[in-house]
Amino acid sequence: MPQGKPATVPDDGLTTRQRRNRPIVAVHTGPMKGKSTAAFGMALRAWNQGWNIGVFQFVKSAKWRVGEENALRTLGESGQGGPVEWHKMGEGWSWSRKKGTEEDHAENAREGWAEIKRRLAEQTHDFYVLDEFTYPLHWGWIDTDDVVSTLQQRPGRQHVVITGRNAPEALLEAADLVAEMSKVKHPMDAGQKGQRGIEW
Amino acid sequence: MPQGKPATVPDDGLTTRQRRNRPIVAVHTGPMKGKSTAAFGMALRAWNQGWNIGVFQFVKSAKWRVGEENALRTLGESGQGGPVEWHKMGEGWSWSRKKGTEEDHAENAREGWAEIKRRLAEQTHDFYVLDEFTYPLHWGWIDTDDVVSTLQQRPGRQHVVITGRNAPEALLEAADLVAEMSKVKHPMDAGQKGQRGIEW
Repeated sequence: MPQGKPATVPDDGLTTRQRRNRPIVAVHTGPMKGKSTAAFGMALRAWNQGWNIGVFQFVKSAKWRVGEENALRTLGESGQGGPVEWHKMGEGWSWSRKKGTEEDHAENAREGWAEIKRRLAEQTHDFYVLDEFTYPLHWGWIDTDDVVSTLQQRPGRQHVVITGRNAPEALLEAADLVAEMSKVKHPMDAGQKGQRGIEW
Repeated sequence: MPQGKPATVPDDGLTTRQRRNRPIVAVHTGPMKGKSTAAFGMALRAWNQGWNIGVFQFVKSAKWRVGEENALRTLGESGQGGPVEWHKMGEGWSWSRKKGTEEDHAENAREGWAEIKRRLAEQTHDFYVLDEFTYPLHWGWIDTDDVVSTLQQRPGRQHVVITGRNAPEALLEAADLVAEMSKVKHPMDAGQKGQRGIEW
């Protein structure tokens, strides 16, 4: 666990306190599964601070992450910690009148990003998880430059964690923290299939 | 996310269902911080299955992970999901009469492992997190061969996740899943210090 003295002290005119409390953009990328798992682990700390948490799942199917969703919803409703909103693209976002079809993923993804942009401008949440958000960027459905400049200009103290493979280089450059999860060994290499409670 | 067909079908005489439901030993290692964070993210899925969760923190000081501890304790007491026990070595394990001093970490660590061994034999928990457990192994305080054979011979359906740097090679060989967290970029490289809600 890194702690103590930072390796260098930047010449950015900020005090240590200002620098310490600067909100971060984190990207969890790489071929291994821990990307989202670690993002939801971070959300536990954010919840414990009483922060307002917004999760946005840019996945086609909503069948995965049911464990994390139930756990974070339960925490959000516990009367302790911060509130939790959990939105998934699935068959259309919860705030959307029109229920998306399987065919218009690109349009659904763009609608999700437009909503997140509004929320960042209004400082709706303190901690955002944009789960699997790298894919619509990688596929060109959402403009990476727009995402980068929106994140760089976001007001206040909003932390943003983005997960998924193939994160665009411009996003990695803009991020404060980039973690790469790599697989050394996985049960599926030995012929084991995914199992309840472990994989989802 | 890996799903679907495994790469190979092993010649182990097990049915797919038996193989699918085989309990796993996972090791999260590497220089990056996400190791424990991802383990606690996995615990959310275990909780959602109603599994009995036991967390054992092999850290000297108990000041870290307070967010994860509060969150998992809150989930354990929510009346949904599985129960959660959280034990930390800190100034002596909760079940121990004698309060350890700062001087006898090795003895404290051995006492922690002896208790985990008892619990594995009794099948007390379904999902164990042995947080920072690699350090007492690396330092030779606890016998790695004993740990490996105990894990290999554990009865029933108990999943075990071990975190920490410098995991001994014999442990990695025995593990079903090894994930390595590597740092690509971290705010501390840019002179930023750890901050509440993000680092702990």
